[in-house]
Amino acid sequence: MTSELLKQHHCFGGWQQRYRHTAQTLNCEMTVSVFLPPQSLTQQAVTQKVPALYWLSGLTCTDENFVQKAGAQRIATELGIALICPDTSPRGSDFPGEHDSYDFGSGAGFYVNATQQPWAKHYQMYDYVTQELIAWAENTLPITQQRGISGHSMGGHGALICALKNPQLYQSVSAFAPICYPSACAWGQKAFTGYLGNDQSAWKNYDAYELLDTTNSQLPILIDQGLEDEYLQTQLKLNAFLAKAKQLNYPVTARQHPHYDHSYFFIASLIEEHLRYHAGALLQG
Amino acid sequence: MTSELLKQHHCFGGWQQRYRHTAQTLNCEMTVSVFLPPQSLTQQAVTQKVPALYWLSGLTCTDENFVQKAGAQRIATELGIALICPDTSPRGSDFPGEHDSYDFGSGAGFYVNATQQPWAKHYQMYDYVTQELIAWAENTLPITQQRGISGHSMGGHGALICALKNPQLYQSVSAFAPICYPSACAWGQKAFTGYLGNDQSAWKNYDAYELLDTTNSQLPILIDQGLEDEYLQTQLKLNAFLAKAKQLNYPVTARQHPHYDHSYFFIASLIEEHLRYHAGALLQG
Repeated sequence: MTSELLKQHHCFGGWQQRYRHTAQTLNCEMTVSVFLPPQSLTQQAVTQKVPALYWLSGLTCTDENFVQKAGAQRIATELGIALICPDTSPRGSDFPGEHDSYDFGSGAGFYVNATQQPWAKHYQMYDYVTQELIAWAENTLPITQQRGISGHSMGGHGALICALKNPQLYQSVSAFAPICYPSACAWGQKAFTGYLGNDQSAWKNYDAYELLDTTNSQLPILIDQGLEDEYLQTQLKLNAFLAKAKQLNYPVTARQHPHYDHSYFFIASLIEEHLRYHAGALLQG
Repeated sequence: MTSELLKQHHCFGGWQQRYRHTAQTLNCEMTVSVFLPPQSLTQQAVTQKVPALYWLSGLTCTDENFVQKAGAQRIATELGIALICPDTSPRGSDFPGEHDSYDFGSGAGFYVNATQQPWAKHYQMYDYVTQELIAWAENTLPITQQRGISGHSMGGHGALICALKNPQLYQSVSAFAPICYPSACAWGQKAFTGYLGNDQSAWKNYDAYELLDTTNSQLPILIDQGLEDEYLQTQLKLNAFLAKAKQLNYPVTARQHPHYDHSYFFIASLIEEHLRYHAGALLQG
């Protein structure tokens, strides 16, 4: 098992780093991007551990998109929060068809544990994110066990299901334009059929809308959604999720913004509010 | 002559736009990225014009790198300044060898008017940036004739020479890690030889170090430079520029920052201060 710092850049007084480590759950090497704020750096031989926000990216992304486009490091430095950004799928396995679609296979792991062949050997992103990534990060980086989770689109789906299934792991959760009900949209149906098979009862375990019925979480969810998002009606299904949450009295704050679309320009515009939201939960101990 | 809005994204309450227009100076179609802050948008049938900061990018960039990576829109919205980002070279000419190097030809126009063949037909980036781009922008966008100019690396060189040669055009100038003395570094020597020929007297017209001798500008220059920049000693030659500016009593504020390198993480970390610097000159009318 290896863990290697590939590169780092000074950024807002902290360090934007990229690591490669052996992911046993995925049977491959994975890259992870990490931002360490100045509060976490060794000063006078004392390292102060800081809370961590785990960010899950969307379709076609790697660990680097959020790092380059969201502008989150400025606020992470102000607040003293580390940012941990995993890749969106296993890499290097080269299964037949793995690289043919933007919405299935490489770059589109959907944060599930695949049960279907050939995917099951590598595509165990749910275990990776909720177990091995956290263990690696907390062994490697100056971070506490205070954890927030957030993400965009497919990564918003990932953040919601990770939090709904593991309220003991995370102190806060938020999402930008999440895929709220994957069993009911084309992206989700394609991914779940491919990774989990045709039996839709297996899908419920990774579907935020369905998990509302069974979760023992009461962690409040913050969602921001642009109203010019080209995927809002067809793929994201926010309204169905909100209606069910309301019916079940699950605490969701969803803010819907005129003009904003599905791009990183939307994320950049709102990321400061999400980091402050997470800080409210993570920095009180 | 055409001008077309290709796309736009809502961003920090304003609009991140991308245009394509016919550039007669370059004999080709050019893309330009523009950020319009909310202050410039039509409200109750009144459009308020805002000042513009022209940003020149570095080697290998297009009009989109700064837009995606610098996080400048947040501050542009706060201050009410438009951001105008041209591409770094003509496109589409496909001269032999044009796409073979990262530091010459496409993506590396160096903001000069080429005199050598085959480049002279298209590579007139100096005239494009200082004349046609400004005319296009001021005819097309809700901006005033208050202009600042800034850039990074090759684009920092571009900002310095445009301002030193045209103090009447710009009210403010700054640069991140600029190539200060291109005649004395490998990047500049390769570009100037290719575009301008072997006669080094022609180079002085596009070299900030040399222009200090002849400029009639007294526009103060702000420069930020990272001390871990891998190109600082070999390509950028900041110290030579600062020594000459001091000797000639030219006003330069140069801030040198430990740990920062040549990347966009450096630009993102300091861009707020540059925008505030430009605002000091542009917003007082």
